[in-house]
Amino acid sequence: MSDPFVVVGADAAGLSAASKFRREAPDRDVVVFEKGQWISYAYCGMPYFIEGRIERMSNLLSLSPSEVDERGIDLRRGHEVVSVDPDAKTVAVETTDGDTVEQAYDDLLVATGGRASVGPFDVRGLDGAFTLHDMDAAAAIDAYIAEPDEYDPDRADVSAVDRERVDRNAAMAAPETAAIVGGGYVGVEMAEALSGRGLDVHLFHRSGHVLSDFGEAVGERVEAELVERGVTVRTNAPVEDLTGDGRIEGIAFDGADGPETLPVDMAIVGVGIRPNTELLDGTGVETGAGGAIRTDEYGRTTLSDVYAAGDCATAIHAVTGEEAWMPLGLTANRAGRAIGATIAGDPSPVGEIAGTAVVKAFDMEAGRVGLVEDEAAREAGFDPVRETVTAGSRSGYYPGAAPTDVTLVADRDTGRLIGGSIAGPDRAAIRIDTLATALEADMTVPEVERLDLAYAPPFSPVWDPILVAAKVLNGTLDGD
Amino acid sequence: MSDPFVVVGADAAGLSAASKFRREAPDRDVVVFEKGQWISYAYCGMPYFIEGRIERMSNLLSLSPSEVDERGIDLRRGHEVVSVDPDAKTVAVETTDGDTVEQAYDDLLVATGGRASVGPFDVRGLDGAFTLHDMDAAAAIDAYIAEPDEYDPDRADVSAVDRERVDRNAAMAAPETAAIVGGGYVGVEMAEALSGRGLDVHLFHRSGHVLSDFGEAVGERVEAELVERGVTVRTNAPVEDLTGDGRIEGIAFDGADGPETLPVDMAIVGVGIRPNTELLDGTGVETGAGGAIRTDEYGRTTLSDVYAAGDCATAIHAVTGEEAWMPLGLTANRAGRAIGATIAGDPSPVGEIAGTAVVKAFDMEAGRVGLVEDEAAREAGFDPVRETVTAGSRSGYYPGAAPTDVTLVADRDTGRLIGGSIAGPDRAAIRIDTLATALEADMTVPEVERLDLAYAPPFSPVWDPILVAAKVLNGTLDGD
Repeated sequence: MSDPFVVVGADAAGLSAASKFRREAPDRDVVVFEKGQWISYAYCGMPYFIEGRIERMSNLLSLSPSEVDERGIDLRRGHEVVSVDPDAKTVAVETTDGDTVEQAYDDLLVATGGRASVGPFDVRGLDGAFTLHDMDAAAAIDAYIAEPDEYDPDRADVSAVDRERVDRNAAMAAPETAAIVGGGYVGVEMAEALSGRGLDVHLFHRSGHVLSDFGEAVGERVEAELVERGVTVRTNAPVEDLTGDGRIEGIAFDGADGPETLPVDMAIVGVGIRPNTELLDGTGVETGAGGAIRTDEYGRTTLSDVYAAGDCATAIHAVTGEEAWMPLGLTANRAGRAIGATIAGDPSPVGEIAGTAVVKAFDMEAGRVGLVEDEAAREAGFDPVRETVTAGSRSGYYPGAAPTDVTLVADRDTGRLIGGSIAGPDRAAIRIDTLATALEADMTVPEVERLDLAYAPPFSPVWDPILVAAKVLNGTLDGD
Repeated sequence: MSDPFVVVGADAAGLSAASKFRREAPDRDVVVFEKGQWISYAYCGMPYFIEGRIERMSNLLSLSPSEVDERGIDLRRGHEVVSVDPDAKTVAVETTDGDTVEQAYDDLLVATGGRASVGPFDVRGLDGAFTLHDMDAAAAIDAYIAEPDEYDPDRADVSAVDRERVDRNAAMAAPETAAIVGGGYVGVEMAEALSGRGLDVHLFHRSGHVLSDFGEAVGERVEAELVERGVTVRTNAPVEDLTGDGRIEGIAFDGADGPETLPVDMAIVGVGIRPNTELLDGTGVETGAGGAIRTDEYGRTTLSDVYAAGDCATAIHAVTGEEAWMPLGLTANRAGRAIGATIAGDPSPVGEIAGTAVVKAFDMEAGRVGLVEDEAAREAGFDPVRETVTAGSRSGYYPGAAPTDVTLVADRDTGRLIGGSIAGPDRAAIRIDTLATALEADMTVPEVERLDLAYAPPFSPVWDPILVAAKVLNGTLDGD
């Protein structure tokens, strides 16, 4: 136990692990290497910063470097871990000065996160084209949207920010028309954000409805809201290319009547993220779902004393019991914390993931959990049966009651609930937690139907929309 | 099978049973006797009608008599079932004309509901003093509050209404100061309602905090909101008497410095309800918790072919597995529906109750589930350990984030979650459903801590308040 616990990456998973470890094992050392300058920022808050709901970028930082220091964590920013030798139990670290040093570890956590996938597109070569996966991108987007004489440099009030990139984007003429490539949750959130900044927004999605993972019922509801709020939604419209010379000029896509080009002066490419696993290339580590680093129930990789957590690691799915890769914030925080405890001597499972996700599109809220799409359910060996109902969010006579769509998916043979989604403008999103809890408890649909859920006119009708959906799905399962 | 299914009482439980029975057994007869004229009204909506949020009393009716008729249900209003002969399998029915007829049954459902408890107070003898347990009372209260020349008789737009009572109350001078006796959820809702009508409201509660069943943390939070909104809250202030001669004049109560009298010109007594079980007096039926009619998992009483459901019947508590009496709307609807199915030939358990309840006090929301108070937990054989945390309802940087109090109660030996409560102004109430689901699944606190709950800045922080509470309670259970 002479060498420290070494963590690669100072974001949600890495710092959660380091913090928990120091609390549980105060006499042992932990070193966190971060290749960049940013630490512990709220990725999920970036669309709302860009929208302008959040005034200062510093609001999105959970922990400052000095707070990390106060926790007794040896944080080294500008230190990139470039290789791991699992036999020698050392890592090689490059500093921003170009020096390379070797660091021994007792235990190693790889928390290298993910990066935006850019698909086939040349985003870096075009001004006005962006992905959104780090704070520097968020700051640059925010600056780009503003007119040069109206940009407030105090918006990006964090020393880590790439000031040169911000200044360069701030100096460009403000865009009027933006394309968003990809209708996942980042795409939907950015559609709201850019509309909020006064842009004419066009959202392109490859398949038939946005938010594919949320299922068709949610996709349709969210699309209706986007359209209602002035966003042009183009589904079944795969983008072929971003065009332009120096600055973005157009979006080439497959329209209903063949190839088309839409002139734009801004584009956000949000076609997913990829796990950063390259650090372990050549070590013989196994990778799994989504190409992420394979981990077990304690976050251990297949290398001895090497753990992985967060967007770079797999997890166990609560419904299938199988490996899955779902890069989400709570998963990273939770796994990091558990691994910190485990390494400190208190073995703690990282917990399963249910794929719970929620998203807001203007006044529409949506959530999903488990296996929502038939294809995913079949792949996992289930025979999916689904029902979608629309029910009131409150007693019908109470002001504010709004139609809430609930989809429940069950396995035909066992009646077990395997997934669900929800959409509606009135507190719909948070209701997904009820389904997440039911899923993790392996409840059947009849058990869901008998849940004693809350009833009071301002909050829910006697039969909560979830109970209504369970009733209907039970009827279907019974062959009614 | 020659005699019909007979139901006594045409409210939530009774009509749910009759409707389900007719759908499942369309060739069999069902007769519903209702002693009064009202059927199927939304009891829980009455405070909001009185407040004025709901414009017409007819908005509170779920089903009209003609809709019941269309369902093929033989509904007989103004027919009071006065006795049951379980050996002969008949009931005696008195009509409003004074006739008594005998009706045979194959199966009988007693769904006689509950009535307001008045404690030691003479409510009926004093104008301006009310209980709130039926629509006629709601209509009378609404009329009483209005100035005689401002009352809109169309508010009480249901033919069943006791028009004479309404007119008499409407003719009285409008009150200025109201006392509410009892700080349960009806008391809290009525405090909001009467304040909304411009009255100076004084809420009296016998014990140390309002909403006793919700636990101290919720009680304090709700009291703070009531006070903030101008309601005078008097806890530890048992009311001794309502004073007045013809019309209410004062509230005599035990103040901090001895007996006091507060002059008022209106009083609402909300000190609980009692089950209406008298119909089965003398039949040898067993009663149980709360004096309600004892029922089993299928809603069967101890009399052969006699069922009971709703506010007059006991149910099985999901946490204790023991009999309990908790008169709530969903319980009645659900049990009625299950009994209808069972009698039609599809045996269906009525479901357990978790004691889930939610309440709104102005902008504060609160919920409770399971065994919240130590005394209740100990009586059920648990060794309760509790923690209360205050956590944000959304990411701290997102507008609208508000402090949310979560209390979790666990059994020390097993770590099992046995109860919880929640309070906060931002979508706090509906979150109780997550705890209700966890309770019904017999989850432990470590299992709750590992739930994959939703995270997105507009809806929840990374660590949902429920997860934060589970973390803290786990620490306590571990002896940290």
